[in-house]
Amino acid sequence: MTRKNVSDAVIRRLPRYYRYLDDLHNKGVVRISSNSLGHKMGITASQIRQDLSCFGEFGQQGYGYNVEELRAEVGRILGTDKQHRIIVVGAGNLGHALMQNFRFMESGFTLDAAFDISPALIGSEVAGIPVLSMDELENYLNSHPVDVAVLTVPRSVAQSIADRLVASGVRGFWNFTNVELSSTVEGVCFEDVHFADSLLTLSYRIAEHPVK
Amino acid sequence: MTRKNVSDAVIRRLPRYYRYLDDLHNKGVVRISSNSLGHKMGITASQIRQDLSCFGEFGQQGYGYNVEELRAEVGRILGTDKQHRIIVVGAGNLGHALMQNFRFMESGFTLDAAFDISPALIGSEVAGIPVLSMDELENYLNSHPVDVAVLTVPRSVAQSIADRLVASGVRGFWNFTNVELSSTVEGVCFEDVHFADSLLTLSYRIAEHPVK
Repeated sequence: MTRKNVSDAVIRRLPRYYRYLDDLHNKGVVRISSNSLGHKMGITASQIRQDLSCFGEFGQQGYGYNVEELRAEVGRILGTDKQHRIIVVGAGNLGHALMQNFRFMESGFTLDAAFDISPALIGSEVAGIPVLSMDELENYLNSHPVDVAVLTVPRSVAQSIADRLVASGVRGFWNFTNVELSSTVEGVCFEDVHFADSLLTLSYRIAEHPVK
Repeated sequence: MTRKNVSDAVIRRLPRYYRYLDDLHNKGVVRISSNSLGHKMGITASQIRQDLSCFGEFGQQGYGYNVEELRAEVGRILGTDKQHRIIVVGAGNLGHALMQNFRFMESGFTLDAAFDISPALIGSEVAGIPVLSMDELENYLNSHPVDVAVLTVPRSVAQSIADRLVASGVRGFWNFTNVELSSTVEGVCFEDVHFADSLLTLSYRIAEHPVK
């Protein structure tokens, strides 16, 4: 399976396919046509067929997609079977909220530990996950390699902490800091969560239906 | 200015345009060509021109866009000048994190109050915003109409609380509950924040650069 030339837009749609297929699967739906799936997702059937064709052949003419199979296949493309290791760096309110409520396992991630500088937090557990001191970060990563760091630290220290993590072998950053991070090391990926993008989309939509 | 036939994909790109233009403006950039802007954003210049043409005429042949003007115009399209009123419903960890760190004003929203059921929180202030009892919700909304509710409550009560908010005139929901919400009332908009979509995109990308 080649992954060359897969556009950013296609990559961004894959998790949505996965979410819809997972939902259909949980509802007991066995198969679905690209038309029906497209209708649910607000995209065209040909868009779906074109997106999936980047990764192989899926579905059968006149039969549609087997929901469970396609869900598993999209999951594999996304790497949900990879058992990635993840840590939370910054166990403040947002870090806490993610540790307590976000289902890392469902996305194929195992949450191993959290790190913070607050003496009140260090040594505690959040949702069963130990909170360790930032002083232990390098030692920890030396013996427990992780793939991804959830970055929920203050803006002012975001880049310097990212640099420490990269130096210790972390290659993926789920970045909630609203700072544009960078690294000169090849293969480092920053995925920025921009809450404002979502709120501004809502702002646009409610302007179409103003409150009287 | 007509807003008919603006596709979902275009609407979703608008906040990104706004974010990049805001960043350029803050860096003192006065004008930019659609080629340069597209290069920064990872999209084509023709995509930008096509997207913006949904809303009028922008830029000048051979000159490019005036960054400040285009930023202001995209902001107006998104409604950042509308001074929307917003409340947080559910002042737990995620609600707290948003109240303390998210810059509502920068997206054109004024945060008025938060609501919770916890006696430990009711009567307190978070980042200067009062936390009120859920029992006061209807009374409050009766005298303080709001446009949008940030929904950071447990899944089990998400729909019933959304129903209460809709009944009191709220039309926009920034939904962090991971529950698909619905309403039969016309004009109600739900904007769901799916953290997993973002993490799965990262999962895909790090699979392209596996840790040795």
